[in-house]
Amino acid sequence: MSYQAPLKEMAFVMNQLAGLSEICKYPGFQASELDAQMTQAILEESAKFSQEVLDPLNWSADCAPGSLQGDEVFTAKGFKEAYQLLVAGGWQGVVHPQEYGGQGLPKLLATACTEMMNSANLSFALCPLLTDGAIEALLTAASDEIKHSYLPNMISGKWTGTMNLTEPQAGSDLSLVRTKAIAEPDGRYKIFGTKIYITYGEHDLAENIIHLVLARTPDAPEGVKGISLFVVPKFLVNPDASLGERNDVHCVSIEHKLGIKASPTAVLQFGDHGGATGYLVGQENRGLEYMFIMMNAARFNVGMQGVAIAERAYQRAVQYAKERLQSRDLSGSNGPVAIIHHPDVKRMLLTMRAYTQATRSLAYVGAAAQDASHQAVDPQEKILAQTFFEFLVPIIKGFSTEVSVEVASLGIQVHGGMGYIEETGAAQHFRDARILPIYEGTTAIQANDLVGRKTLRDGGAVAKRIAKQIETTETQLATHASDAALMMLSHLKPARLAFEEVVEYVLQNAKQDIKAVFGGSVTYLKLAGLTLSGWQMARTLLIAEELANEDPEFYAAKVTTAIFFAQQLLTQVPGLAVAVTQGGKSLNAMTADQF
Amino acid sequence: MSYQAPLKEMAFVMNQLAGLSEICKYPGFQASELDAQMTQAILEESAKFSQEVLDPLNWSADCAPGSLQGDEVFTAKGFKEAYQLLVAGGWQGVVHPQEYGGQGLPKLLATACTEMMNSANLSFALCPLLTDGAIEALLTAASDEIKHSYLPNMISGKWTGTMNLTEPQAGSDLSLVRTKAIAEPDGRYKIFGTKIYITYGEHDLAENIIHLVLARTPDAPEGVKGISLFVVPKFLVNPDASLGERNDVHCVSIEHKLGIKASPTAVLQFGDHGGATGYLVGQENRGLEYMFIMMNAARFNVGMQGVAIAERAYQRAVQYAKERLQSRDLSGSNGPVAIIHHPDVKRMLLTMRAYTQATRSLAYVGAAAQDASHQAVDPQEKILAQTFFEFLVPIIKGFSTEVSVEVASLGIQVHGGMGYIEETGAAQHFRDARILPIYEGTTAIQANDLVGRKTLRDGGAVAKRIAKQIETTETQLATHASDAALMMLSHLKPARLAFEEVVEYVLQNAKQDIKAVFGGSVTYLKLAGLTLSGWQMARTLLIAEELANEDPEFYAAKVTTAIFFAQQLLTQVPGLAVAVTQGGKSLNAMTADQF
Repeated sequence: MSYQAPLKEMAFVMNQLAGLSEICKYPGFQASELDAQMTQAILEESAKFSQEVLDPLNWSADCAPGSLQGDEVFTAKGFKEAYQLLVAGGWQGVVHPQEYGGQGLPKLLATACTEMMNSANLSFALCPLLTDGAIEALLTAASDEIKHSYLPNMISGKWTGTMNLTEPQAGSDLSLVRTKAIAEPDGRYKIFGTKIYITYGEHDLAENIIHLVLARTPDAPEGVKGISLFVVPKFLVNPDASLGERNDVHCVSIEHKLGIKASPTAVLQFGDHGGATGYLVGQENRGLEYMFIMMNAARFNVGMQGVAIAERAYQRAVQYAKERLQSRDLSGSNGPVAIIHHPDVKRMLLTMRAYTQATRSLAYVGAAAQDASHQAVDPQEKILAQTFFEFLVPIIKGFSTEVSVEVASLGIQVHGGMGYIEETGAAQHFRDARILPIYEGTTAIQANDLVGRKTLRDGGAVAKRIAKQIETTETQLATHASDAALMMLSHLKPARLAFEEVVEYVLQNAKQDIKAVFGGSVTYLKLAGLTLSGWQMARTLLIAEELANEDPEFYAAKVTTAIFFAQQLLTQVPGLAVAVTQGGKSLNAMTADQF
Repeated sequence: MSYQAPLKEMAFVMNQLAGLSEICKYPGFQASELDAQMTQAILEESAKFSQEVLDPLNWSADCAPGSLQGDEVFTAKGFKEAYQLLVAGGWQGVVHPQEYGGQGLPKLLATACTEMMNSANLSFALCPLLTDGAIEALLTAASDEIKHSYLPNMISGKWTGTMNLTEPQAGSDLSLVRTKAIAEPDGRYKIFGTKIYITYGEHDLAENIIHLVLARTPDAPEGVKGISLFVVPKFLVNPDASLGERNDVHCVSIEHKLGIKASPTAVLQFGDHGGATGYLVGQENRGLEYMFIMMNAARFNVGMQGVAIAERAYQRAVQYAKERLQSRDLSGSNGPVAIIHHPDVKRMLLTMRAYTQATRSLAYVGAAAQDASHQAVDPQEKILAQTFFEFLVPIIKGFSTEVSVEVASLGIQVHGGMGYIEETGAAQHFRDARILPIYEGTTAIQANDLVGRKTLRDGGAVAKRIAKQIETTETQLATHASDAALMMLSHLKPARLAFEEVVEYVLQNAKQDIKAVFGGSVTYLKLAGLTLSGWQMARTLLIAEELANEDPEFYAAKVTTAIFFAQQLLTQVPGLAVAVTQGGKSLNAMTADQF
């Protein structure tokens, strides 16, 4: 079955929850003359590209994902033509600065486009996603010379970008990076080393690939403070931006993966034939810092991949459940009915729907905060938005991706035996989704970020501010006082209190028992994800009851989905708080030898 | 890494929790002169077969799973030789009656053997598992003539068996079966129809395949009351048990599946060349009834597959976590440490361990109950054991298999990026596990059974009896009064109360709002699974504290794992009870069109 971009749903979240019209008023966006009509037109074009170009390639590319021949990767059939349409449509440049040829549109709008591409074809959409990351890194830290040499062609999509972090011994721990960078007299560097898990590290979609590479200069300090960032293009770039000679970076193998098979994951060898030419980005030894600035954007986008694949799995399951006839209705029917009428199938579909809508809502609200952090006029508003966004990033990345695996798994279950047959398509989403809680920092790495940088560093200030905002929503629910609002309140309040309790626990115990606190970090992340996305469902409920008359069926479904989230998912939160606050000691008690 | 059968762990559960020595005293087992030494010898032999023969084929067979040529399936390299060793070792006949050449040993012992084979190679182990099911069905319902013609060769493993239930339009709903059976003057039947998802429906491991087929006679009543069971051998069997002519049942295709790739899943065509010869099992129109008697055994065994794959995934993750060096220790270290020392890795491993041990304990206790139900002398003891076992079956099947997917997913996560690379092996367990909550009745079908046949039918009598037994354990925890026992009590008691609350809810509401009740059925099953397996962890804790001096490290790990289960997993139960008791209405509120 084919993908249908959920434009109505997206418009609701963007307009009602994330405040698109406010964002369009920021001075930085006034030049683009963005209004509701133009927004709608962009979304429709993006939907068309995703539905008509990318979606039809998703399964065929999974079956025949391309191959490595010599050191060249030939991507799956149809990818090259699809990529040309990506370039022609200007989709790589949606958020990027007009100065370098981008469209300079809000992140909120780009986020919806990212979601659609990833729903339609996760393997394909990874390529522009990685290029986005590389563009962000260069915008953040590169010299004007490098920016002018590379950014226009990357933002147009003519060239793609990669992130080269991981090495066989250096995964989550980048302090172990060994790739060497030796300065040459002309200011350039020679790069030597092996990088693994390089997504789209080699392919035939674009004429050049711009690798961003973490490496160490010979005198660099040990650990993370001795890592620098380099640009290493596949083909050297002449001063006139034309392509020069082939650089000494070569793909030596591609991985045989569980999913996202059509996205080539390369092992890249730098400098086996004399040294790969690299250009320092920013200053020496500040590479990790630059990476981290860029990382928030990349992690956010991977979180959106979670939302995207959940949406896709949900759509497929709903369609199957409406078509497949099996068993009589429990309340009586002459013959078999569509399985969507069976209570547990409905429960599974509502679980998928509730998770998808809730994580989408939180992510779009996050995207709007990032827009505000860049574009707001009031410096105080900027900082509030920035810190809010930064708090959300590990949650959006960690929670949406963990949830996407569960949603994709339910998608299989709705299909019964058919779900296990590859041709049905549900299994591909399950395989594809499974990478999301791993790459761009595993869930544990996100949780470390949530505990360390986002909670402990500011003494829980942002976390507590968010709890206050949730309390405001609770007050609105109490005032609204419909049955649905009161039901939501009865679960949102205990969840918010549990969130506060866990934040307090983290703050109180990090010094005395750091291991116990970090042992609860992923559970804290899950709890925060449920609470904060449940909060968005509470806001949704209030708005839906206000707007009910405008579109009764649509808003009734919104209210029901929100109540379902409250009763079936938010109710997990108090138990998770106990797991965090009590669980650390038993973790510590278990020695490695006892496993 | 290779599989190591957890013999010490198994011995603990069998002896301390499931009461093996009591079972060996039943008159029916006295002939086998089973004692601790003989038990140990059998388990060691089974471990050897699983570790040395089956485990080495697991990955290679996944990569090259065999093929269909014409209507013949050639299984993966090495499977034929392994199957010959299965036959030579007598492993097919462990539990089956000595009368037909089996060993007549306790189900409890056979369960451990089943676990080992499935840990080592799920695809391979499915073949004897299905044969077991077919043997049970014939033992239950077939005439002496059929029994004598087929059982000796099936119990020896010379022939294998299959279960032919599903048709394209008849999956969970067997009332829709259309396969026809036309009586012939000689008392035999001609069978016509298509059966799908037939595990090992065609293969080259044995010289004959005995298909058990659900079909309808021409005058049969509609629905499930018109289904009969037939034996349809691949090769007809002569009176002297030698093989006769090829029967008219042919494999027309095999499925391309997410996992268990080396187990051929066949589409079988019956009667395309004049009719397949079949023999009625038992009486006409009672086929589904016979199937249900057999089904408890098959479902239990699939539950064991869940335990088995969880154990395998756990072992692989532990070994990787002990070897992989990454990042410094949070409490300080000079260089990177093995990742098992990082709190979240430890949390994941303990989650895997706790789930595996808890589901194993519940399943072995269930197996012991089945032995008692067959072999106890006291009729009252027999009935109590039988009803206890029957209550457990949907929980063991549904909960252990759902949990196994989560455990296998954590197994990938522990490996980080490596986990997503197929060659690592963690991904295969994840793919293989995903079928378990689907086949032999999806989790929803198990949950229907739990609500309908196992809770409503007896007015909750068995459920309430189990709650009383848990209360007894609570009293023991209170009396024992160690810190660990009191901590366990603080979570077991609320879980048991929540279980009772949900049982009461089901009993009170089934008449007024059947859809709401069934909408909570899978959540009830999950809640029951956590509570009942948590109860086994509580019993474990008490025993481990008693025996602590005998093997301090082993029992300390048992106590820690039990406490971890209580704090991190049992704490989910009260929230699940709210989901069941409140969630039904919002499920009903959502119409199919609103999705």
